[in-house]
Amino acid sequence: MERELIISLDAMGGDDAPEIVVEGAAIARERYPNVKFILFGDETEVVPLVTKFPLLKDNCEIRHTEKVVSAEEKPSQALRRGRDSTMGLAIESVREGEAVAAVSAGNTGALMAMAKFMLRTMPGIDRPALGSLLPTSKGESIMLDLGANVECDENNLVQFAIMGAAFARTVLGLSRPSVALLNVGVEELKGNEVIKNADRILKEADLPINYVGFSEGHGLANGEVDVIVTDGFTGNVALKMAEGTAKMISGLLSAALKNSIFSKIGYLFARSALQGLKDHLDPNNHNGAVFMGLNGLVIKSHGSASAAGFASAIGVAVDMAANDLAGKITEDLKNFEGHSKGDEPVIAEEKVS
Amino acid sequence: MERELIISLDAMGGDDAPEIVVEGAAIARERYPNVKFILFGDETEVVPLVTKFPLLKDNCEIRHTEKVVSAEEKPSQALRRGRDSTMGLAIESVREGEAVAAVSAGNTGALMAMAKFMLRTMPGIDRPALGSLLPTSKGESIMLDLGANVECDENNLVQFAIMGAAFARTVLGLSRPSVALLNVGVEELKGNEVIKNADRILKEADLPINYVGFSEGHGLANGEVDVIVTDGFTGNVALKMAEGTAKMISGLLSAALKNSIFSKIGYLFARSALQGLKDHLDPNNHNGAVFMGLNGLVIKSHGSASAAGFASAIGVAVDMAANDLAGKITEDLKNFEGHSKGDEPVIAEEKVS
Repeated sequence: MERELIISLDAMGGDDAPEIVVEGAAIARERYPNVKFILFGDETEVVPLVTKFPLLKDNCEIRHTEKVVSAEEKPSQALRRGRDSTMGLAIESVREGEAVAAVSAGNTGALMAMAKFMLRTMPGIDRPALGSLLPTSKGESIMLDLGANVECDENNLVQFAIMGAAFARTVLGLSRPSVALLNVGVEELKGNEVIKNADRILKEADLPINYVGFSEGHGLANGEVDVIVTDGFTGNVALKMAEGTAKMISGLLSAALKNSIFSKIGYLFARSALQGLKDHLDPNNHNGAVFMGLNGLVIKSHGSASAAGFASAIGVAVDMAANDLAGKITEDLKNFEGHSKGDEPVIAEEKVS
Repeated sequence: MERELIISLDAMGGDDAPEIVVEGAAIARERYPNVKFILFGDETEVVPLVTKFPLLKDNCEIRHTEKVVSAEEKPSQALRRGRDSTMGLAIESVREGEAVAAVSAGNTGALMAMAKFMLRTMPGIDRPALGSLLPTSKGESIMLDLGANVECDENNLVQFAIMGAAFARTVLGLSRPSVALLNVGVEELKGNEVIKNADRILKEADLPINYVGFSEGHGLANGEVDVIVTDGFTGNVALKMAEGTAKMISGLLSAALKNSIFSKIGYLFARSALQGLKDHLDPNNHNGAVFMGLNGLVIKSHGSASAAGFASAIGVAVDMAANDLAGKITEDLKNFEGHSKGDEPVIAEEKVS
């Protein structure tokens, strides 16, 4: 028997909460028989929804909570008044060891700030990072930081590399994932000082990761590396640029296929092949960004995720908890002592939406 | 009659030079009857190629030049020994006023460094920027800087905004193009200090541009603004991320359509509709990145551009020269006096490939 995993859910976070949260939990429960949930939300809304899914109903506890962090709330506001919100209490249950992970589709900046404040960074990690799986031409790769820190120094980047490698080992099941720094060129002379220093440290430090050097913007999409490391500003822009491009092409493709009677016939024949491509690119199938480097697991779902998408985010939480992400990061950090600058309790004001 | 425009071409730059350069020039000459070319290259190679295109032959002068800047050469090396190369002499002809623009598909870092050193920045512009048209779901937008400056201050970004707006007026024919700063969020609190300061200056300065605030990574692909301004590091990563994503999807789409007999039949029916999409995304149809802010026009073609792609890059040069890009920038800069820090002759070591 696998050990039981308890996961806390912010039932009220996201564009279509609590419906998709409950439905997503029901899908995940079918998939992971060892999982139980604690749902933080308004019981007048949540109870009737949960009742529709008997298996979920038998494996979840609903904790009535009325206060919700809104999408517009600034991180600093959420910190001041959101500790007893559905989001805050979900994180608190992780801090207390009651749950192995918290999943929320709510306000990213608020989630980040509260998670960081309440869980604190792991020993040896100066700043947490937001990482996620992304589709490539070969399968999936991981990119981090996707927006937790708009400005990073070389030690932050090195720590992100360690955390990203642990992510790949845990979720992609790779024993020795390749890791690259995102840069504007592959030659050693390129990039700014921070990146050059991070490159030097990653080469010199005796880290148990397969550091392969620099990778450019197209390196992610073509799947040439398993983990791409960058600062939160570049990562956030790059992620949204990739998502925007994919959405643009899907839109243009679907318009093109409705363009004439011939293209409509063509679409009918090619439909199942095109569906496979659509599934591969669907952000719902890669949903679940992880705040790494904290003393506890917090997973961010897209605010507009479907129920299946929310279930994917829960799946990331399950993989990480079952395969001990934190243990892997701690292990790898041992080889990187002396480079860390200690915990700085900086509260990021930025938000990833 | 339109006035005659003389354009210099680096006949030896690019993966398939001089063939595609000559063929691209021949295509452009059919399109623009007022254009004449000066081709810098090895006459033993160039003359036989030009002879195949009688109209081009009658409207071009070949200047025999044997020295070529290689793709591997560092910008500093090119500056020391490349002044009398095909690339260097093409730029020199612009400096001397003999040609209105130079077009090269060669080494980007070398072209940038030589152009900057030989042409110097315009009064009021601290650093030049590399800008280009990119496909969006609505048509085309402009992004800059794509890699000329890995680190930028707020004045650089403001000057890029002015230059980008002039680019849009010149090439897209828009009278009041919308301009945005690329950021990680659309709220005023987001981003780093440089971006916040640039945002403030763009709002406060009485500039004749339609500044609309921040735009996120997906804002380019969905065509919500005409001009997206960012530093060269982020711009280069974003451009390559978008290109990589487009290439990944095309590859997966084409594999999907070859997947089964049904999808093959579907492809046959939908082929012409899909070809339209392919054309819209083809980098050759948006080819021609412009080094803006110099005392003279220099256009960079993709190194792997087709002849049609090289002709597009020549088309950008023609639009810019015929519509007086430099005059528009100078005009707009008048409203931005006092923010400039004067010309710094910094030679960038970075390369866009």
